[in-house]
Amino acid sequence: MVTKVVDLRSDTVTKPTEAMRAAMAAADVDDDVLGADPTAQRFEAEMAKLMGKEAALFVPSGTMANLVSVLVHCDVRGSEVILGDNSHIHIYENGGISTIGGVHPRTVKNNPDGTMDIDKIVAAIRNRAGALLYPTTRLICLENTHANCGGKCLSAEYTDKVGEVAKSHGLKLHIDGARIFNASVALGVPVDRLVKAADSVSVCLSKGLGAPVGSVIVGSQAFIDKAKILRKTLGGGMRQIGVVCAAAYVAVRDTVGKLADDHRKAKALAEGLKKIKQFKVDSASVETNMVFFDIMDPRISPDRLCQVLEQRNVLAMPASSKSMRFVLHYQISDSDVKYALTCVESY
Amino acid sequence: MVTKVVDLRSDTVTKPTEAMRAAMAAADVDDDVLGADPTAQRFEAEMAKLMGKEAALFVPSGTMANLVSVLVHCDVRGSEVILGDNSHIHIYENGGISTIGGVHPRTVKNNPDGTMDIDKIVAAIRNRAGALLYPTTRLICLENTHANCGGKCLSAEYTDKVGEVAKSHGLKLHIDGARIFNASVALGVPVDRLVKAADSVSVCLSKGLGAPVGSVIVGSQAFIDKAKILRKTLGGGMRQIGVVCAAAYVAVRDTVGKLADDHRKAKALAEGLKKIKQFKVDSASVETNMVFFDIMDPRISPDRLCQVLEQRNVLAMPASSKSMRFVLHYQISDSDVKYALTCVESY
Amino acid sequence: MVTKVVDLRSDTVTKPTEAMRAAMAAADVDDDVLGADPTAQRFEAEMAKLMGKEAALFVPSGTMANLVSVLVHCDVRGSEVILGDNSHIHIYENGGISTIGGVHPRTVKNNPDGTMDIDKIVAAIRNRAGALLYPTTRLICLENTHANCGGKCLSAEYTDKVGEVAKSHGLKLHIDGARIFNASVALGVPVDRLVKAADSVSVCLSKGLGAPVGSVIVGSQAFIDKAKILRKTLGGGMRQIGVVCAAAYVAVRDTVGKLADDHRKAKALAEGLKKIKQFKVDSASVETNMVFFDIMDPRISPDRLCQVLEQRNVLAMPASSKSMRFVLHYQISDSDVKYALTCVESY
Amino acid sequence: MVTKVVDLRSDTVTKPTEAMRAAMAAADVDDDVLGADPTAQRFEAEMAKLMGKEAALFVPSGTMANLVSVLVHCDVRGSEVILGDNSHIHIYENGGISTIGGVHPRTVKNNPDGTMDIDKIVAAIRNRAGALLYPTTRLICLENTHANCGGKCLSAEYTDKVGEVAKSHGLKLHIDGARIFNASVALGVPVDRLVKAADSVSVCLSKGLGAPVGSVIVGSQAFIDKAKILRKTLGGGMRQIGVVCAAAYVAVRDTVGKLADDHRKAKALAEGLKKIKQFKVDSASVETNMVFFDIMDPRISPDRLCQVLEQRNVLAMPASSKSMRFVLHYQISDSDVKYALTCVESY
Repeated sequence: MVTKVVDLRSDTVTKPTEAMRAAMAAADVDDDVLGADPTAQRFEAEMAKLMGKEAALFVPSGTMANLVSVLVHCDVRGSEVILGDNSHIHIYENGGISTIGGVHPRTVKNNPDGTMDIDKIVAAIRNRAGALLYPTTRLICLENTHANCGGKCLSAEYTDKVGEVAKSHGLKLHIDGARIFNASVALGVPVDRLVKAADSVSVCLSKGLGAPVGSVIVGSQAFIDKAKILRKTLGGGMRQIGVVCAAAYVAVRDTVGKLADDHRKAKALAEGLKKIKQFKVDSASVETNMVFFDIMDPRISPDRLCQVLEQRNVLAMPASSKSMRFVLHYQISDSDVKYALTCVESY
Repeated sequence: MVTKVVDLRSDTVTKPTEAMRAAMAAADVDDDVLGADPTAQRFEAEMAKLMGKEAALFVPSGTMANLVSVLVHCDVRGSEVILGDNSHIHIYENGGISTIGGVHPRTVKNNPDGTMDIDKIVAAIRNRAGALLYPTTRLICLENTHANCGGKCLSAEYTDKVGEVAKSHGLKLHIDGARIFNASVALGVPVDRLVKAADSVSVCLSKGLGAPVGSVIVGSQAFIDKAKILRKTLGGGMRQIGVVCAAAYVAVRDTVGKLADDHRKAKALAEGLKKIKQFKVDSASVETNMVFFDIMDPRISPDRLCQVLEQRNVLAMPASSKSMRFVLHYQISDSDVKYALTCVESY
Repeated sequence: MVTKVVDLRSDTVTKPTEAMRAAMAAADVDDDVLGADPTAQRFEAEMAKLMGKEAALFVPSGTMANLVSVLVHCDVRGSEVILGDNSHIHIYENGGISTIGGVHPRTVKNNPDGTMDIDKIVAAIRNRAGALLYPTTRLICLENTHANCGGKCLSAEYTDKVGEVAKSHGLKLHIDGARIFNASVALGVPVDRLVKAADSVSVCLSKGLGAPVGSVIVGSQAFIDKAKILRKTLGGGMRQIGVVCAAAYVAVRDTVGKLADDHRKAKALAEGLKKIKQFKVDSASVETNMVFFDIMDPRISPDRLCQVLEQRNVLAMPASSKSMRFVLHYQISDSDVKYALTCVESY
Repeated sequence: MVTKVVDLRSDTVTKPTEAMRAAMAAADVDDDVLGADPTAQRFEAEMAKLMGKEAALFVPSGTMANLVSVLVHCDVRGSEVILGDNSHIHIYENGGISTIGGVHPRTVKNNPDGTMDIDKIVAAIRNRAGALLYPTTRLICLENTHANCGGKCLSAEYTDKVGEVAKSHGLKLHIDGARIFNASVALGVPVDRLVKAADSVSVCLSKGLGAPVGSVIVGSQAFIDKAKILRKTLGGGMRQIGVVCAAAYVAVRDTVGKLADDHRKAKALAEGLKKIKQFKVDSASVETNMVFFDIMDPRISPDRLCQVLEQRNVLAMPASSKSMRFVLHYQISDSDVKYALTCVESY
């Protein structure tokens, strides 16, 4: 008998459903590097339409999705990108935009809600022609939902404002939309409306949506044409990739409708944690599928807590040296939430 | 009714078999970025063993396999790699080792058999300590079989010799073994013996082996540890990648044994082409699954020939402005070879 | 008759003295790329000794001094540097460490006194072996005096503390000491003591010291050996460079003793500005040769003020959209200070 | 008494003349980073005019001159440059265009006369829009005179032809004209005519022209505007650089007229060497100021020969493991040539 594991480490841990597995087994495929895979093409067209952009491109990961996007917008040597100091691109993607791409990052402070102040963004822009002393700002990046800010959503209005700043300064706007569908569901705003101001968006398929592999980037046809070349350079051009796109198609079709439920469970988990005196959690701050909470008892370390939970088949990850993170996804049931709370409580 | 297409463009066009599809559907998977996918781990262990190296890493493509390998060996700024002027890495991988990796390529002339003269390799090495004027050679790359040299095999003896040169000069040796199993089969030499002298080898799973997606790199544990970080940086870290590894496992298991048959059909195709007076082909030069032939009639352009063949459901690609390339794989039958010859003949 | 111009734009504007000109004319020189220029060698030896380090290297500019230093310490791909968010390297050097060097910058907030909080530096360090998600911190950079923080000095104690943090985490410490002699003089601490904890220091010769051209970097012999190669790569290897080193030698000999006077005049200028009601200047904050002041009258723009002053032969530069910067140097006399104040006052 | 040294290592070893020293001492200078140095501006204007281009920029070295030029033309990520396999940029500049600039070099075989066959250049060009598999050719580089080919001159006609190839393919043409004045003098063709087809030219001031420091690049104003930014990024922006430009001005004025004499002496040296049976030299191949000769006696190594010569105050450098190089310059007299020959002969 396999013991059920309640895996709250991330929404990347979901396993493909039977429907996804069947889709992979049945997919009509061909060589996508030669531009011939029908399933990949259908999926890309679908995603472009859903996101309200001209074209889309499947890539192996969220990291490549962001890397390709930033490098396409910053294809001229000496480019600078403005992004949040707590953004996933800056903190968790190996600094690839610099170390591989030679792009200079200029960070602006992320507020607790994931935004950067508009005036701080404007102040950071540097693209006067002929300037000798600084790189040229070519891109602004937002992240929606913002992982390191507890899965907070950026509103369409805020995004539009940043889009106007970008446009009026001749810059591009990229959204790291790894969890953009969570934002769309939580805000009750169609996803294409939410990213309307963006020149490019990366969307992760293997996080809350549950596909086994992949991300997609969307933008203008010209952007995607350049992205395709760069994807090849980085080694992200794959052959009969339709097998994976077929699963991703099912993920988008079947899972977006379940995200609201993840958010409800995250709230429930937060409410439960709130009642445990060793922890501090602001349940009002739980907007999507992530619950961050502080450990108030100095004798409890996140690492130790994770170990104890693991012995009871609950998997989790520290968020910092004093805080923890639980991430909900559609393979976590209401009873899993209750079980996890019981385990945490009895610690 | 679907008309049968005889696709001779490349051995990358094979479609997953029923067994591969079933394996994908049934694969036991988990989050490979978290180091937890059992199918990926099993497959990597299997490949490491088969290739006679300590460890292995699955990557999305042959391009990433080579890019990661070169960059790991050349992780210090100011590195130079010695490689064939006609090698796939130099000609067909977007110059990524320079444009993304900042590595300086130093080419040595490829002989028609895919080798580089040993004395020319030695003469190209530059790694005197303290040298001010040139980059530091850190790596030699071989390619086996050598695609642009007609799929020729490098012998174990030649590879060993280059390995000795590398070792005695403190360099590493990487083999682009996209089609190393073809070489092993054609030479009748076990694949681990063939790459014994190499510090790293890339092996393509989605060429002659027929897996839908992926390549694998093998080397020491220390090499693979570094490669894993770089794979993440480039965006090649994927989640439930076991679904694809399961198919690759079947590919290696089921297809290696069929490569000899591909080689036999390539010979047959070459013999057939030899009899057509407009073409010139050296059938003795066909060592593996590739047939290159020159078009002697100046009125026939490769592009035009491809178009005409396509109308008869035979797909092919030009090799140059005056030559063509046919690539055999296990989804091409003996009757397909005959049919292709008929179409070419009646042109 | 040439009208005297009072040039307060920067301490880079000083013109070579007669002694420097005579030294250039008389310098004993040879090809420095061949390692044969006696004047360059003597000067480098002198600077190494003065700074308390093993070896020194002359480079064309402060930007190259910092670029070479950072890149030598971060010579492995995937490196991260911790530096102040207001530091010269981050703000004014074209992002070269990223755009040319592929190093990922991680900024820590600069306090108004030019320091970064020790605990923030520690929190920013990321160099756990085997980490997959972030670059590896290899270097911390300080700036002393700190230009964008008004020419403030970092104490030997603070520098030592950062040095301990670096050492205990296996990192290197680089000091952008473009104006390190100003700090030494202002603090009354020998310059070698001030940089004791540093693995490398860049010193500008053509700022307050008044040499026409050049900077010097100092560090261990191993560091300088690597720096020499990188200087050549960047194009900073020059031939009979002794002509310029001879002038720099005079600059160091003759001008260090005059820096205290620059600081006194900066104080005087600040005191004078303080009395003008349109401006706000914290004279206590003037520690070295820079005076930053805010324009409180919204009708006066820094650009306009500069234009008006220029008509009266006083040159200055805006520090921001609401503030100005005056920089003192030994070619500004007490009466120049008075004249500048008169011009500003009568605006 | 100082013993006269006959330094035939390179034409970079010349020491500044009295006139140059006087010019340095008297130069009218200001801060060139602020665009204010009158001597630098005058010199740059002069050089632009002399070379027949819109604008010029002084840089610290020939390496930076080429590096900046290549990077400006290849400012978009994924660029490829076509250049000679024996060219100085490819062989002796640390691979900086790749290791610092991320440009992919594609070499074409240099003929013994320094040319590359036009059809080979054309065959190497790859810039079809939308190509997925290879970088985009953006630049062709020539070298005139060609150092590694014995100082051979490229004719205006050949250069024009390469220029036409470049233009018709939408590429730029850069000439590494480190010794372009030698070519102009040897061919009897005005230097501006010789580089008419080029979009940019680098000219070394500290080789045969004898300036202590520096090179200059010329091209369109738009090219130079971009070059200025990149010069700053690399750390080549210098302050009162007029001191060095003043010497360079004298060098150009006084030395170009003496180059013919260097060529005559090179011929004489070659004729003398020809008579010594241990050496083989093709005196007809001596077109400018370089003499390459092979050592036919296997018992004599170039390293050993250099050591012996050094004991008699003649300095030289090996060209390979079996050949030597003597370089003439205006500080080598006819009697020096005779003395050197005597020393070589009596070896």
